[in-house]
Amino acid sequence: MSKYWSSLVSKLQPYVPGEQPKMANLVKLNTNENPFGPSPKVIEAIQSELNDNLRLYPDPEGLALKESIANYYGVKARQVFVGNGSDEVLAHIFQGLLKHDKPILFPDVTYSFYPVYCGLYQIESNVIPLTDSFEINPDDYKQANGGIIFPNPNAPTGRYLGLEHVEDILNANPDSVVVVDEAYVDFGGETAITLVDKYPNLLVSQTLSKARSLAGLRVGFAVGNEELIEALNRVKDSFNSYPLDRLALVGAIAAFEDRDWFEKSRQGVISERERVTAELESLGFEVLPSKANFVFARHPEHAGADLAAKLREQGVIVRHFNKPRISDFLRITIGTAEQNNALIKGLASI
Amino acid sequence: MSKYWSSLVSKLQPYVPGEQPKMANLVKLNTNENPFGPSPKVIEAIQSELNDNLRLYPDPEGLALKESIANYYGVKARQVFVGNGSDEVLAHIFQGLLKHDKPILFPDVTYSFYPVYCGLYQIESNVIPLTDSFEINPDDYKQANGGIIFPNPNAPTGRYLGLEHVEDILNANPDSVVVVDEAYVDFGGETAITLVDKYPNLLVSQTLSKARSLAGLRVGFAVGNEELIEALNRVKDSFNSYPLDRLALVGAIAAFEDRDWFEKSRQGVISERERVTAELESLGFEVLPSKANFVFARHPEHAGADLAAKLREQGVIVRHFNKPRISDFLRITIGTAEQNNALIKGLASI
Repeated sequence: MSKYWSSLVSKLQPYVPGEQPKMANLVKLNTNENPFGPSPKVIEAIQSELNDNLRLYPDPEGLALKESIANYYGVKARQVFVGNGSDEVLAHIFQGLLKHDKPILFPDVTYSFYPVYCGLYQIESNVIPLTDSFEINPDDYKQANGGIIFPNPNAPTGRYLGLEHVEDILNANPDSVVVVDEAYVDFGGETAITLVDKYPNLLVSQTLSKARSLAGLRVGFAVGNEELIEALNRVKDSFNSYPLDRLALVGAIAAFEDRDWFEKSRQGVISERERVTAELESLGFEVLPSKANFVFARHPEHAGADLAAKLREQGVIVRHFNKPRISDFLRITIGTAEQNNALIKGLASI
Repeated sequence: MSKYWSSLVSKLQPYVPGEQPKMANLVKLNTNENPFGPSPKVIEAIQSELNDNLRLYPDPEGLALKESIANYYGVKARQVFVGNGSDEVLAHIFQGLLKHDKPILFPDVTYSFYPVYCGLYQIESNVIPLTDSFEINPDDYKQANGGIIFPNPNAPTGRYLGLEHVEDILNANPDSVVVVDEAYVDFGGETAITLVDKYPNLLVSQTLSKARSLAGLRVGFAVGNEELIEALNRVKDSFNSYPLDRLALVGAIAAFEDRDWFEKSRQGVISERERVTAELESLGFEVLPSKANFVFARHPEHAGADLAAKLREQGVIVRHFNKPRISDFLRITIGTAEQNNALIKGLASI
């Protein structure tokens, strides 16, 4: 607290990202990174841009990347917005499209950055409990609101909501923007991007940090009606003209071009996820059905915090949220087979 | 305008960055990029980080870079904030430290992003005219305010305000944050970072886009009292946990380590600036005294817009601002000797 701070600053409750430990040799299953690494073509593309041209500003619009994403999804470049990781994209979405007179709706168990953005932009929210089985019930989103946002698959539960239910929510809210945050969609879900021409109120956000294995490069994007994208462009051009550096732009384009690598990578995660799920169940865990690159699991006889602490002693880091309803769960990122074996071995010994 | 936009969006007047032309072979003197390119050690450092680790999130705090900057300037890492270009840093400064009940003060002729941030965060401003010779008069900044910001050297004028005058402003405003935006300070000015331990209300922002020739990498920073930096951390952690990607972090560190390259680069710009100034004067231009990597010049017999258009026909792009008081000026980035010769030749032929 300081007299120099704007009145907002002392009220903020900043987001706390998963730990990025500086120790080597840890089995790091706490921040939903992809174990398989980026496409070699991404590395090559960045390599080719790594020269004197770094003295020049990047394209402020990132048009070549927008075109690449548009081409991939069969939409127009003007329906695509790109930003410095999907967290930046989400921030602009909250400020530009979710701040209205009525409160916005999002689930009680969800990405914990949403309430932080509400604090940053002073947006009222109405938090909607997930069902007892930790699912989104579309009927709960049929009430007055200034906007709706949820991840699909949801995080940290991993549960996926079928597109017919997403459409149910879209149809019930023609006057609100419905944001589907698809950070994890490529691990078994279907993207709602196929619906953007049908619903002017639909905005889909995605990231290259997960299925495209580029958490270290910071690229996210959103796809929707041109009118929604124009709002994001206006906010972005009032905040930072050049959010994506030259290397991130070319790396991201290459990531969309190498479809084979992408397929191999996500299928590898999916098959390991199914194996880990079965192993956890055989150890007595309840594992929520996941379409993400993590599983959310609890054991009837062990507190989540205890399990996380004991795993840590064995050099395995997972994420535990000390929050209502989910404090007995662990969110476990799917790693390599070797990492997952270390996890299972660690849990078996507890 | 759309019913989906927050009420703010339609009121925004976004910043318009200098053109990034896609044509080759233009003499590009419009966005104050450095003609000399980044240090080869920057390229090497990024090269060494260009691997599978891109799958991992970067350090959200960017601590190694903060330490590098702190070491360079003889301050503590906790007195340093880093962001995705100085525009992002400035945005957080406006939101976190310049939004108070009273209007903030900045010059009428200055970085045109300042009024844009005021729009984005709904901050009142009181715009203070520069003197007739386009200088900042410290006495004008001795009035009630919610904060003060000015570039030093100022942009687009290039004029530098000596540190004794900066201290005059700091002493007159102990209850306000005074932000000195030093994007161009390394081309002949003295940094106010040496004063941060003396003035708790001083915040200095800088960029690696200019003297360190890394506009394409997007790295900026601020240095000040820990209390001020804490406000910026709180805003940043409520906006985007990981603003700097892994490659930008290591590249920026290398840029601070290679002091020889930095010295050679900025001295090269300074000596070309002096030559260009003399050439322009011999063509009849009035050139404001510049400590930046650009000059701001007007000709008594030619309108600025005409000169810019005619230069463009000859393949030379400079920046012209169609704004009160400065519409007859051109802002001309100092390029390589060859580029500068093309500029002079172009102007001589008009």
